[in-house]
Amino acid sequence: MASRIVIALGGNALGNTPDEQQMKIDAVAESLVGLIAQGYEIIISHGNGPQVGTINLAFSEGSERNDKIPFMPMPECTAMSQGYIGYHLQKGILKELRRRGMPWHVSTMITQIEVDPEDNAFKNPTKPIGAYYTKEQAETIMAQYPQKVFKEDAGRGYRQMVASPKPVDIVEKDSILNLLDNEFIVIACGGGGIPVIRKGDGIYEGVDAVIDKDFASSKLAEMIDAEYFFILTAVDRVSINWGKPDQKDIEKMTVTEAEKYCEEGHFAPGSMLPKVMAAINFAKSKQGRKAVIASLEKAPLAIQGLSGTEISL
Amino acid sequence: MASRIVIALGGNALGNTPDEQQMKIDAVAESLVGLIAQGYEIIISHGNGPQVGTINLAFSEGSERNDKIPFMPMPECTAMSQGYIGYHLQKGILKELRRRGMPWHVSTMITQIEVDPEDNAFKNPTKPIGAYYTKEQAETIMAQYPQKVFKEDAGRGYRQMVASPKPVDIVEKDSILNLLDNEFIVIACGGGGIPVIRKGDGIYEGVDAVIDKDFASSKLAEMIDAEYFFILTAVDRVSINWGKPDQKDIEKMTVTEAEKYCEEGHFAPGSMLPKVMAAINFAKSKQGRKAVIASLEKAPLAIQGLSGTEISL
Repeated sequence: MASRIVIALGGNALGNTPDEQQMKIDAVAESLVGLIAQGYEIIISHGNGPQVGTINLAFSEGSERNDKIPFMPMPECTAMSQGYIGYHLQKGILKELRRRGMPWHVSTMITQIEVDPEDNAFKNPTKPIGAYYTKEQAETIMAQYPQKVFKEDAGRGYRQMVASPKPVDIVEKDSILNLLDNEFIVIACGGGGIPVIRKGDGIYEGVDAVIDKDFASSKLAEMIDAEYFFILTAVDRVSINWGKPDQKDIEKMTVTEAEKYCEEGHFAPGSMLPKVMAAINFAKSKQGRKAVIASLEKAPLAIQGLSGTEISL
Repeated sequence: MASRIVIALGGNALGNTPDEQQMKIDAVAESLVGLIAQGYEIIISHGNGPQVGTINLAFSEGSERNDKIPFMPMPECTAMSQGYIGYHLQKGILKELRRRGMPWHVSTMITQIEVDPEDNAFKNPTKPIGAYYTKEQAETIMAQYPQKVFKEDAGRGYRQMVASPKPVDIVEKDSILNLLDNEFIVIACGGGGIPVIRKGDGIYEGVDAVIDKDFASSKLAEMIDAEYFFILTAVDRVSINWGKPDQKDIEKMTVTEAEKYCEEGHFAPGSMLPKVMAAINFAKSKQGRKAVIASLEKAPLAIQGLSGTEISL
């Protein structure tokens, strides 16, 4: 069996408009396809923070002006974002495959992920979605839509926050494995998966939340026994003392070191912290497994160990 | 090899809100799963007229009020609708499968369908999307969004119209066949597929249109060598002289009869006409192939020949 890599692309690194998104995906397709050429099987997952926030807000704004536009709950918004981003990924990756004369196929699977209805996350929304706003803009939107919660996010402005429960099981895991076994490049667990709770055998119900895509991808990577788990984001490396004079970029860290940095509060909640924690989850699940956090642009270098931050036992 | 059935669900039959849609899908899941229990392999496709129109309009209305909401082109709106409707179908069908103790899996594949950039349809938009409006409401929206075209639709009010080119090829056909061969229930070609034009080997570009889901499904049914092609919609049977005193519901017709009725103008463009034409396409493609147009509610009866309209050579 070929070694498997799960690659999680950050939603924030995919731009804010359809054109930007396709351009950024086309630009990264070369490194993604490069991995396949090196003999790996790959599954691609992706975030959807900005995209699902935009979809959610478009329906909020739209339904207020036009009564033919219904209210759209978060699980349905995530399902839409899986279609939207998956389509662009399929298109960008297929183009690069054929450019290299590679016969592989690429498929997007709509994916539901089970979460625990008792997860504490439902009491404290911490997952940022949508665009960045000023404090004043955020307060205006909150006044208009009292059910929406906005908080300051990673020093870059105010964003809407939703609950982010941990993934328990991937409902479509058999479909994913089937295609992977047949040499398809699979795009799955988009936006962390559509969050559902289990009500009985085969009975799932959507729930108002967004699962962190890095935790969802870490779950997926464990489940398919991946060797590598790449988290591709907007920065080249994980840093400690971020934004301070003594900022230090990290090339390699052990799970123990990474856990210490998390405890010391080096990483922003809703931003770098969940990435490092998802990387730790995967790296500690089995000896030899490597998690890498790197930038979308420098993914090819990260694969060769020349960029990014590697986390292992 | 088990006989294959392609089932095309009408977007208009799926309701106007997420709750309505899930309820209607749950209600029809029994008949869909019943087909599998009878030993058929099934692929489900679906329309997206109301849904893609809602998504398109939510982004139009939203982007006008909030500059963080981008303009969303039709191919991206269709991709979103595939995720949205596919998610509900997966959920409804899985529940029914497990209720019967059946181990099958169900998957939604994001599907691109190639169209011809020279297709005449681009010059004359005839595919209705979105909600029904009064003449006055439609004129207000057209004044506000001059690129949108509204026309009277099937006597039920005014709807936005977009170009509806014919499907040429299904980009993800290998993925669909692979899952089908492995006993998965596949949901594909949603909303007629994401319309793309081919710019070179593996190079596709989204195009501003909506492919009729019945033509897309007919193409799919031919391609996978299906025995049956079911078009499920809001009426029990195809009628001639529809809405007149001498209205006659049809139980069976040959391709020749159906073609004659089309020429005589019995069927409304953008409504029953494309369904009958897609049924004809499939039925005439090979001796023994049967197309059936029936209502979502009476699908189980139609399968036994007790409802619906059957078209064959």
